[in-house]
Amino acid sequence: MATFDVIVIGGGPGGYVCAIRAAQLGLTAAVVERDKLGGVCVNVGCIPSKALLHSAYVANLVNHDAKDFGVEVGGVTLNFGTAMKHSRQVADQNSKGVEFLMKKNKITVIKGEGTLVPGRKVKVGTETHSATKAVVIATGTRVKGIPQIGLEINKTTVISSDEALFLEQAPKTLAIVGAGAVGTEFADIFNAFGAKVTLIEALPRMLPVEDADSSAAIARSFKKRGIDVLVGAKVKSATVGNAGVTLEVESGGKTQIIEVEKVLMAAGRALNTQNLGLEAAGVQLDQRGFVKVGPDLRTTADGVYCIGDVAGPPMLAHKGSREGLVVAETIAGKKPHAIRYDNVPSVTYCHPEVASIGLTEDQCKEKKLDYVVGKFALTANGRARATNETEGFVKIIKDKKYGEILGAHIVASHASEMIHELAVARENEYTVEEVDLAIHAHPTLSEAVAEAALDSLGRMIHA
Amino acid sequence: MATFDVIVIGGGPGGYVCAIRAAQLGLTAAVVERDKLGGVCVNVGCIPSKALLHSAYVANLVNHDAKDFGVEVGGVTLNFGTAMKHSRQVADQNSKGVEFLMKKNKITVIKGEGTLVPGRKVKVGTETHSATKAVVIATGTRVKGIPQIGLEINKTTVISSDEALFLEQAPKTLAIVGAGAVGTEFADIFNAFGAKVTLIEALPRMLPVEDADSSAAIARSFKKRGIDVLVGAKVKSATVGNAGVTLEVESGGKTQIIEVEKVLMAAGRALNTQNLGLEAAGVQLDQRGFVKVGPDLRTTADGVYCIGDVAGPPMLAHKGSREGLVVAETIAGKKPHAIRYDNVPSVTYCHPEVASIGLTEDQCKEKKLDYVVGKFALTANGRARATNETEGFVKIIKDKKYGEILGAHIVASHASEMIHELAVARENEYTVEEVDLAIHAHPTLSEAVAEAALDSLGRMIHA
Repeated sequence: MATFDVIVIGGGPGGYVCAIRAAQLGLTAAVVERDKLGGVCVNVGCIPSKALLHSAYVANLVNHDAKDFGVEVGGVTLNFGTAMKHSRQVADQNSKGVEFLMKKNKITVIKGEGTLVPGRKVKVGTETHSATKAVVIATGTRVKGIPQIGLEINKTTVISSDEALFLEQAPKTLAIVGAGAVGTEFADIFNAFGAKVTLIEALPRMLPVEDADSSAAIARSFKKRGIDVLVGAKVKSATVGNAGVTLEVESGGKTQIIEVEKVLMAAGRALNTQNLGLEAAGVQLDQRGFVKVGPDLRTTADGVYCIGDVAGPPMLAHKGSREGLVVAETIAGKKPHAIRYDNVPSVTYCHPEVASIGLTEDQCKEKKLDYVVGKFALTANGRARATNETEGFVKIIKDKKYGEILGAHIVASHASEMIHELAVARENEYTVEEVDLAIHAHPTLSEAVAEAALDSLGRMIHA
Repeated sequence: MATFDVIVIGGGPGGYVCAIRAAQLGLTAAVVERDKLGGVCVNVGCIPSKALLHSAYVANLVNHDAKDFGVEVGGVTLNFGTAMKHSRQVADQNSKGVEFLMKKNKITVIKGEGTLVPGRKVKVGTETHSATKAVVIATGTRVKGIPQIGLEINKTTVISSDEALFLEQAPKTLAIVGAGAVGTEFADIFNAFGAKVTLIEALPRMLPVEDADSSAAIARSFKKRGIDVLVGAKVKSATVGNAGVTLEVESGGKTQIIEVEKVLMAAGRALNTQNLGLEAAGVQLDQRGFVKVGPDLRTTADGVYCIGDVAGPPMLAHKGSREGLVVAETIAGKKPHAIRYDNVPSVTYCHPEVASIGLTEDQCKEKKLDYVVGKFALTANGRARATNETEGFVKIIKDKKYGEILGAHIVASHASEMIHELAVARENEYTVEEVDLAIHAHPTLSEAVAEAALDSLGRMIHA
């Protein structure tokens, strides 16, 4: 039994960042973690998947493009096991990095399952710890299957990202259920490593939360690479065997039978709100199952805050981290800037990458906004041509009257980095004129951002 | 003999962009070009060099890193001729792109050498054309040797970038004189293609206009790759033969003899101000040889403007293009925003890339500014770890009192894209707080920008 100013339940990117900021502000902090520090993000999410995606990039480069660039290779052997090992090393290195940060900031790490006890207390095993100021719930999410149609995760033939990240070899055939960011990234990875991939999405297009133009660009790119993308598709039944799975999938009015070695479930995640003692402690959930929070992320229980995935969408590591910072500052008596939830960037790290911020064009239509679209295709960008990465575009949607940036959508080899000038611009309410005013270096992909801004003003130069 | 509203002499990135903007604003425009449209940048500069740098990246990836990522290759053969051909294709495609833009915007292209004739006239061959509104000088620069020490460009053993971009094979041994952006980029390229490269810089460090930390990071990286970097080095004599060159180089108090197959001259460029009829037309030069211009880029002759390299430093394509836009708007009677010459980004596209904006730390010291440095090393960045590209850092120098961004320096695999959020922020006079306020996507290299901003505020999270 120990006493801290702040106890955080969950050592993911929301929780550990919250603890660090609390420590910086002079508070004593503890993080309760039942598994590895860094949570899903560091161990079975963002980080290892990006390492595998780079392996996929290298595989495609060597197999398809290297020769054009003057690099001729003999036989190419793809070894998913090696790629996986590299990815595990990176994940472990990052988890150790979080451990180091905890020590450096004198944060106590308590291993085990944390349960909330009324009165700002957290029970871990037989010990109950007290928080003088606040308890922060940051328990995140976990993978889930769809038992209703027989696709319960069995970790062998029906797997989740948790298992996919540890495979010793790529399956020969793979169906991925769900074409959001996770499903799309794994389709990219396993296709590059030789699997015949079928990507199945219930909604009418892949990457359904992205702009329709982004979805279309990636669907086109995936089809070119031989990935089967089935949209508006319903898995009607699944027969799970020891060596494979047979799916009955209805799409476009036709029903087809898909036989695969493995099925990867990527259709949403389950919230970790069970066995946390929430109800007893007076922490209420909303209708969708998220913890009910006010604008300052306070729950319905006094002195209990909630951040990250369990506090509501978007379920993104960087949104959780920012909530962690803000909550730590609130607990320390500061008045942090309110989080602009409408300005959280979203990235899918397939090739080319998809990055976005703000509204999609469809959302602008639904909201009946008076908007103008500026768009520049990478086929006209010198840097993209130099590296043979001309798939993609930059699309900026601006308010017709005031020039405000309503949304921005980028498909490009380095979209994940390019989106940030628009994130900064949008956060500070600059217009497209102010984005263009900054001279963009030549030759860069980011010049396409300036050109899209100019296009929305009717004065694009290079197309 | 024809009459236009505007005649631009020089079809490089300053000139052709000026003509397009003039045409957009309803003016008739002509561009006089003696060689290929797009100028040095498109044909023998920025664009083909970036294609070769990508070849170098691919070569190093395949030779060194691919295996770690699970991509094993048999024998690797590097073919510089193929890389060169790809690079030429990209350059030609971009030059044709400029041709297309000229047609689309109904701009007349006049092939030949343009000479200024008093009274807003330009003579090309036997024809003299008139401009009702303005003549714009955009003639740029050309390569130069150092004849004083016997290093006159002979195009075989003593070459410039003009020839280096057309080599059928990489030399076995190469000395590069000048370690600015051009010399550094070619060192990267030819090292990757197997040449033993010696990079010779007269000033005390390579990339002398960049921040000292950037120079040190690249010098370290180059040494690791076996590139000999000699700084504070003076070429005392050169013996040029048919099959090679012998250089006597003094550096660090020692004189050494360097025998190489070729010498690549990359120590500055010569201004194209000769045979232009400038004096007769009343266009004066300044003491350094640049065309004398006022803040709106007017020369000393009525109705004659000057943009790009000949109008003064920095000699960068994007600075010339912006001047082209601004001059076209001025000619059309608009009042464009003044160019902030202190906010022109600079990029060297070696691996990792170097990008910067604003003041270096040494410049801040010279100016006796009260500053704080925020710095974040990529060794602690998850995305950099995932791709094994942890060389580098983000460094932000902020004014101690007001938080204004005085300068920013990035060494990273995609520094060229990352610099733009700081370009936009700095152009619009936002502080480090406002950069951090924008949530950065995880995991991206750009998170290091946010961390450097936080570090300058004393509250870095991930290190």
